[in-house]
Amino acid sequence: MDASDPFVEVRRATEALCAPLSVEDLNLQSMPDASPAKWHLGHTTWFFERFLLARESDYRFFHPRYEFLFNSYYDAIGPRLARAERGLLSRPTVEEVRAYRRHVDERILAQRSRLPTELITLGLAHEEQHQELLLTDLKHALSRNPLRPAYTTPVPRAPRERSHRWRSFDGGLIEIGAEGRGFAFDHERPRHHVFLEPFRLAEWLVSSGDYLAFITDGGYERPELWLADGWEAVRRHQWSAPMYWESHDGPFALFTLAGLLELDPAAPVCHVSFYEADAYARWAHARLPTEAEWEHAASHELLDGGGGGGNFLESGRLHPSGSGSLFGDCWQWTASPYVPYPGYRPAPGALGEYNGKFMCNQMVLRGGSCVSPARHLRASYRNFFPPAARWQFTGIRLARDA
Amino acid sequence: MDASDPFVEVRRATEALCAPLSVEDLNLQSMPDASPAKWHLGHTTWFFERFLLARESDYRFFHPRYEFLFNSYYDAIGPRLARAERGLLSRPTVEEVRAYRRHVDERILAQRSRLPTELITLGLAHEEQHQELLLTDLKHALSRNPLRPAYTTPVPRAPRERSHRWRSFDGGLIEIGAEGRGFAFDHERPRHHVFLEPFRLAEWLVSSGDYLAFITDGGYERPELWLADGWEAVRRHQWSAPMYWESHDGPFALFTLAGLLELDPAAPVCHVSFYEADAYARWAHARLPTEAEWEHAASHELLDGGGGGGNFLESGRLHPSGSGSLFGDCWQWTASPYVPYPGYRPAPGALGEYNGKFMCNQMVLRGGSCVSPARHLRASYRNFFPPAARWQFTGIRLARDA
Amino acid sequence: MDASDPFVEVRRATEALCAPLSVEDLNLQSMPDASPAKWHLGHTTWFFERFLLARESDYRFFHPRYEFLFNSYYDAIGPRLARAERGLLSRPTVEEVRAYRRHVDERILAQRSRLPTELITLGLAHEEQHQELLLTDLKHALSRNPLRPAYTTPVPRAPRERSHRWRSFDGGLIEIGAEGRGFAFDHERPRHHVFLEPFRLAEWLVSSGDYLAFITDGGYERPELWLADGWEAVRRHQWSAPMYWESHDGPFALFTLAGLLELDPAAPVCHVSFYEADAYARWAHARLPTEAEWEHAASHELLDGGGGGGNFLESGRLHPSGSGSLFGDCWQWTASPYVPYPGYRPAPGALGEYNGKFMCNQMVLRGGSCVSPARHLRASYRNFFPPAARWQFTGIRLARDA
Amino acid sequence: MDASDPFVEVRRATEALCAPLSVEDLNLQSMPDASPAKWHLGHTTWFFERFLLARESDYRFFHPRYEFLFNSYYDAIGPRLARAERGLLSRPTVEEVRAYRRHVDERILAQRSRLPTELITLGLAHEEQHQELLLTDLKHALSRNPLRPAYTTPVPRAPRERSHRWRSFDGGLIEIGAEGRGFAFDHERPRHHVFLEPFRLAEWLVSSGDYLAFITDGGYERPELWLADGWEAVRRHQWSAPMYWESHDGPFALFTLAGLLELDPAAPVCHVSFYEADAYARWAHARLPTEAEWEHAASHELLDGGGGGGNFLESGRLHPSGSGSLFGDCWQWTASPYVPYPGYRPAPGALGEYNGKFMCNQMVLRGGSCVSPARHLRASYRNFFPPAARWQFTGIRLARDA
Repeated sequence: MDASDPFVEVRRATEALCAPLSVEDLNLQSMPDASPAKWHLGHTTWFFERFLLARESDYRFFHPRYEFLFNSYYDAIGPRLARAERGLLSRPTVEEVRAYRRHVDERILAQRSRLPTELITLGLAHEEQHQELLLTDLKHALSRNPLRPAYTTPVPRAPRERSHRWRSFDGGLIEIGAEGRGFAFDHERPRHHVFLEPFRLAEWLVSSGDYLAFITDGGYERPELWLADGWEAVRRHQWSAPMYWESHDGPFALFTLAGLLELDPAAPVCHVSFYEADAYARWAHARLPTEAEWEHAASHELLDGGGGGGNFLESGRLHPSGSGSLFGDCWQWTASPYVPYPGYRPAPGALGEYNGKFMCNQMVLRGGSCVSPARHLRASYRNFFPPAARWQFTGIRLARDA
Repeated sequence: MDASDPFVEVRRATEALCAPLSVEDLNLQSMPDASPAKWHLGHTTWFFERFLLARESDYRFFHPRYEFLFNSYYDAIGPRLARAERGLLSRPTVEEVRAYRRHVDERILAQRSRLPTELITLGLAHEEQHQELLLTDLKHALSRNPLRPAYTTPVPRAPRERSHRWRSFDGGLIEIGAEGRGFAFDHERPRHHVFLEPFRLAEWLVSSGDYLAFITDGGYERPELWLADGWEAVRRHQWSAPMYWESHDGPFALFTLAGLLELDPAAPVCHVSFYEADAYARWAHARLPTEAEWEHAASHELLDGGGGGGNFLESGRLHPSGSGSLFGDCWQWTASPYVPYPGYRPAPGALGEYNGKFMCNQMVLRGGSCVSPARHLRASYRNFFPPAARWQFTGIRLARDA
Repeated sequence: MDASDPFVEVRRATEALCAPLSVEDLNLQSMPDASPAKWHLGHTTWFFERFLLARESDYRFFHPRYEFLFNSYYDAIGPRLARAERGLLSRPTVEEVRAYRRHVDERILAQRSRLPTELITLGLAHEEQHQELLLTDLKHALSRNPLRPAYTTPVPRAPRERSHRWRSFDGGLIEIGAEGRGFAFDHERPRHHVFLEPFRLAEWLVSSGDYLAFITDGGYERPELWLADGWEAVRRHQWSAPMYWESHDGPFALFTLAGLLELDPAAPVCHVSFYEADAYARWAHARLPTEAEWEHAASHELLDGGGGGGNFLESGRLHPSGSGSLFGDCWQWTASPYVPYPGYRPAPGALGEYNGKFMCNQMVLRGGSCVSPARHLRASYRNFFPPAARWQFTGIRLARDA
Repeated sequence: MDASDPFVEVRRATEALCAPLSVEDLNLQSMPDASPAKWHLGHTTWFFERFLLARESDYRFFHPRYEFLFNSYYDAIGPRLARAERGLLSRPTVEEVRAYRRHVDERILAQRSRLPTELITLGLAHEEQHQELLLTDLKHALSRNPLRPAYTTPVPRAPRERSHRWRSFDGGLIEIGAEGRGFAFDHERPRHHVFLEPFRLAEWLVSSGDYLAFITDGGYERPELWLADGWEAVRRHQWSAPMYWESHDGPFALFTLAGLLELDPAAPVCHVSFYEADAYARWAHARLPTEAEWEHAASHELLDGGGGGGNFLESGRLHPSGSGSLFGDCWQWTASPYVPYPGYRPAPGALGEYNGKFMCNQMVLRGGSCVSPARHLRASYRNFFPPAARWQFTGIRLARDA
C-alpha cells in the first residue's frame, strides 16, 4: 500500500488517533450526541462499504447487521440502532471492527479504478470529519471520569500577546460559496451573490482572559446580555463558565486532552455555546460575524492545504493556542442560522441526507479547530451545530459594523 | 370618550372580543404558551401603566402585585409569575381586571397630551397583537373541552376555485424593511439591501384539499420529505394531519372558533408547523419563500389600512377562507430564520426585550391572519414562532426558483 | 325536603362549602392530583346518578357526556377525561353543574324507597370524602396565587401546653377491622387477628414546635435520618420544611385556608409527607405506629359520631389546633403500607375499584383531620396516600416499643 | 491459598463468572440500575477494604479515589459517582481492578485472625449477592445488542409435566425470622410472631405455558385484572409479555444468557414485575403468598446449604427450568411490602444502610433464583425490589385462602 495515497493516508490517520487508547477507552459513550471511538471506526468504514462497494449489485456485505449498527442517520437506507445505544455494543469487538476496516480497505484499493473518484473523495472528507469528532467525543468521555485521564501530553508554548485589532472590509455585492472546481460539500454551493454592509472583523479570537473579564463582570447573571433561549439555557444547565472550566474555590483549571491544565489567559476561549458567544459579543459592544462576512474575509487568506499557519490537528497540540490565522484553533460561531444557499440542490439519493436535512435550528460555524485535519478546511467550508452545543471546540471571533 | 379615537377604539375592541365569553372561559389556560383571556386583558393594561403612566416618578401603581402578575417576559423589570401559572389566578377576578382597565384608560386619556405619541402607538400595536393571541389561545382552550364549545357561529361562503398560478419576480438588488415614516416595530428596521435571484410566488395559499393530497400520498410517513427535526417532531407528537383536524374513521372535520366544521377543500390549510409547511413544499417540488422575497412581492400590493381585501379579524369569519390577497387568512411560514437585520438596534430600556431577545430558534412568518386586526399589518411586518408551533393560524404559500 | 335527612344534609353541606367561593375559584386546578371544586360538585353527583339512578335500565342520563367528564377512575365504566384536564372545563358552567345536582337530588329523593340503602350510604360516605378533598385541593390552588387569598377567617385559640406523655399497650393477639354491623368500606373488612408486641403511643400529635427543633437540628440535611426514597425526595423537591411553611429570612409563616398565619408552636405540625414523618420519628428515637397498633388504641376511645372531641370540619377552624383526641386535627401516617386484609373481597362490579386497585405504593393514614366531617370517621377507618404526598392535612403521632 | 476456604472460594467464584467475558463486555452498563461487571468486581473488593481493612486506623487505601468510584450507596461514607455513570469508567481498567482485588485479598488473608469473623461472613454474603447481580445486569446489557451475544451455551432438559397441585397449611400463631444462631442479614431479625389464616400454596411455579394462556386471554388489555399503578405501567411501558420475550409475527422466543431460545411452556415464567405477578394471580382466581406464609411453608423444607434440590447458580443452567423445590429457579414475588420486622434494629454505623433505608416502595421476594449461589439462601431470606422491576430473575408462585 502506498502511504502517500490519500485514501491510505486518511484511513491510517484515523487508526493512529486510536493508538494511545485502551479497548475500554475505545468503547466509551458519554452522551447520545457523542459516539464511541470504536463506532467511529466502524461507521467510516461502513460509509465506504455502503456508498462505494455496495454500488456493485452482487456485493455481499461483510456482516449482515453492520448496516443496522453503523448507519448514523440515513433514513433512506433503513432502520438503525438508537444513537444513545452505541456505547452498549461490546460486540463487535475492537478487533472485529479492525478486521472490518482491513476488509473494506482492501476491496476499495482493489477496485479503485472502477469507483467514482468524487465518492472516494467524499468518503475521505467524511472520515476527516469523524477524526475530529472522535477526539471531541473522547474528550467529553474522559472528562466524566473522576480520575481525569489524559489522552496526550501538554505541549508548552511561548507566551503571546493578545491583539485587539480589527480589520475593515468595504462590503458591497460580493460572492460566497464554493467555486466550480475542487471538492466541496453540496451545501457550499451554489456560489451566489450576497450584499454586505461595511464591517470590521477581529484579528484574534476572544481569549480566555477576555472571557474571564466577562464572567467577572457578572456575564452569567445579567439577562440583558442574553438571547431569551440562551438565558433559559444558563439557568437550566446552571452555566457559569465555558465547558471544561472548573474552579474549586480557586482559579480556574481546564480539562483538556492533556489532562487538567491551568487556565492560560492568552489562549482562545473554547467550548462555549452560540448563546455564550452571542452574550459575550453583546457585552463587548460587538456582534458575531455573519457567515458571508467571515467567508468574504477568509477568501483573501491563503490556505495552501496546509492550514495557512492555523493550529490544526497536525500540530498535535489538540488545544487552542492562538495563531493569528482566521483558520484553526476553534470553530467560530457565526450569527447565521444554517439554511440552504439560494438554488441549493442536495446530492441525489441517501447522500442527500448528508447535510440538507439539518438545515433548521442550527448555527453556522467557520474556520476549523485544533482537532480538524488541516487539509479538510477551506474558505467556503460550513460547519453547523445547535446553539446550545458546547462539547465541540467552539470559540468566538467578534465583528462590528464599520 | 371619543369612540373614533384609536386608543378608545383598540381598547374597546379587546373588550368586545371578550363579550361572548363566560367568566369561566376568560380564565382558561390550556398550555404554558397560551394565556387566559383575563390575563391578556390585564397584561395589555399593565403595558400602558408600566411604559406610559409609570414614567411619572410619583405614579402609584393600581395594585402593588399586578406588575408581578402581568409582566409577560421583561427581565429588566423584575421577577414575574411563571408562564404556566397564569391560569391559576382566580384573583384578581374578571371584574377587578375590568376595573383595572377602566382606571388605566382614564389616566391615559387624562394625561394624553403629556405622553409620547410613539409609545401610545406602540401600546396599541401591542394590544392588537394580544387581540389575535386572545382568540388563538381561546381556540386552543376550547378545543380541549370534550363538549366542543363554539365561540361564534359559522359564516357561510360561496364556493371558490383554487388557483395554482405563479407570479414571477426578477430579483436583483432590492430593499426590504420599514421605511422612515410611520410606525414599525424595531425589528423591521433598518431598511437595507438584499440580493435576490429571480423567483416565483404562488398566487394562492395552499388549500386544505391540496394538503389532503399530501397526506394521502403518505406525507407523514416519508422521512425523505422532512427536515431531521421535523421528522422527529412527527414521530414524537404522532402528527398525521394539521392541528384541529380530526377523523374518526371518516372524513376529516375541523375544530374552529365556530365549533366542529366539515373540511372545506378550497379553504387555505391552517395550523401547520413550519416543519409541515417545509415538507409539503418539498413534496410539491417547490419551497417556502424567504422573507425578503415575500416582502418584495408584497411591496407592490396596496394595503390601505383596510387589509387590501384580505380576510382579517374584521370579517368576523375567524377562519381562513381564501381571498387571493397576499395578506390575511393565515400567517405564512417563510424559509427565513428570525435574525436581526444588518445594523439592527433594539429599542432602549426594557422595551428592547420586545423583539430582540427572541432572535434564535424561530422562523419568520408574514402576511397576517383571519384573527389579525387589518390595520395591524404592513408589507414589512415580521411575525415569528418556533418551527414546531401549530396553535397559531399558520399556513403555506409556495415559492419556486424562476 | 327534610334538612335532617342525611342525604339532604350531606348534599347541602357540600354546597355550603362552596358558598364563599367565586365562579373563578370553583374552577381552579393547580395540579393533576387536585381537582376543581366544580368538578367535585359534578363527580359526587355523577356517583349517585351512575351507581343509583342508572340501575334502572330505562334511565336517561342528564347529559350524554357527563359520564366522560365526571368519572374519576372507574376503568370498568369506560374512557374518561385525563385527570390533569379537569381545570380546562369552562363548560359545563357552575350553574349547569348546580342544575345537575338539583336534578339528581330530586330523582334520588323521589325514588328513595326503591333504592338500596347501603348504596345511598356509600354515596354519602363518598361525598364526605370529597368534602375533605374539595377543601384540601382548594387550599393548594389558593396557595399558588401570589395575592394569597383566604377562604375563611382565622379562629383564635387559647394557648395550650404540649404533652409528651405516652400511653402503654400490652399487645398480644388482638383483632382489627370493621365489625359486622354498620357501614364500613370494603377494605376495612374482614375483621381479623393480628399479633402485636407491647408498644407505647404518644398522647399528642407532634407539634410545629417539636418539628422546628428537628429542622434546627439539621433534619433536612442528614441522610442517616431518612429512607433512601425519602432522601431522594428531599433533594429532588428541595424540601426544607413542611408544605405551606414559608420563611423569608425571618420566622416561619404558614399558608392556611385563613390566609398567611404566624407559626403556632403548640399546634400539630401538618402537611408533611410519610418520608418526613418517618425521618422525624427516627430523629426522635421513636417510630411511627402500625395501623394495627393505632386501631387497637383507638378502639378504646369513644367516637359517638360527633368526633369524640377531636378537631373536625364542623369546628370551622379548618386548621389543626391540637385536641388531645386520637382523632382529628391531622391524618396520622402509619408505618403500614396499604395492603388488603387477609380474606379481603372487593365490592362487586365497578365499585370494586373504589379501594382495591390502589393497594400498592401507598401508606395507611388514620384518624381524620380538621377538614374531615366528624361522622365520617371510625376506629377501623383506613385512609391511604403515596409516601411523598404533602397536600393532604397529614401529621405525625409517634410510637415506641414498650 | 486454600481453595476450600470460603473466602477464597467466594472471591474466586466471582472471577470465574467473568472468565468468559471480553474486556468490552466487562464494561457494559445498559441502565442506571444495572452496573458493569467490572464495577461489581471493584465494589465487592471495596466492601472488604472499607469495612474490614480500614478498621485499622493506619490503613492506607489502595487508591485515593476508589472509594468515590466504588461506594454504592452509603451516604455515611460520603459522596460517590452517580449510579448511571458507572459505565463511563474506562479507567481503572479491568487489569487494574484485578490488581486491586489481589491486593485486598492478600491483606485480608494475612490479617484474617485479627478481623471480625461476622464481618468477613457479611462481606462474602454481600459478594454472593453481587455474583447474582453481575449475571442479571450482564443479561440486560447483552440483550440490548442487536447481535444477540450469548454468555453461555444452552443446557438441554428432559420434558416435564407441570403440576397444579396445592399444599395446605393450617396457619395460626406462628414464628418467622432468623433464629439466633448462624449468619443472617439484620432485616431477617428479630424472629417474631405472626398470625396466619389457613392457606394453600402452589407446589410449582407458574410456567411459561400458564402465563401464555393469560396473555392469550387478553391479560395485558384488561384493566380489571391490574392494580392501578400496574395498569399505568402496562400502558406507559407498553408491556405485552414478560421481559426478554419477543415475537415477530410468530411464536415467542426468549433472550437468555445462552442466547435466543424457543419458549419452553413447561419452564417457569421469569422476568415479570410484581404488577404482572399480581395480575396473573387475580386472573387465576388466586393471590400471591405473604412473606410469612412463604417462610412458614419453607421452614419445613430442608435446605442443607446445597439448595435443597433447587435450580441455583451451581447448575450452570442460568435459566429457570422447574425443579419442584420451593427454592431456586425464580425469585417469587410475595404480597408483602418490604417493611421492618417488629423490633428491627439496623446494624450500627454505615452498615446500617445495607438494608434498612430501602424499606419503602419495594416488595419482598423469596426463594432465590437460577443465578443465586445455593448456599446464599435460607428460609428466612428476604430479597426486595420495586414492583415494576423486571430485569431480575423473578417469577410467580400462587397462594389461595384455604
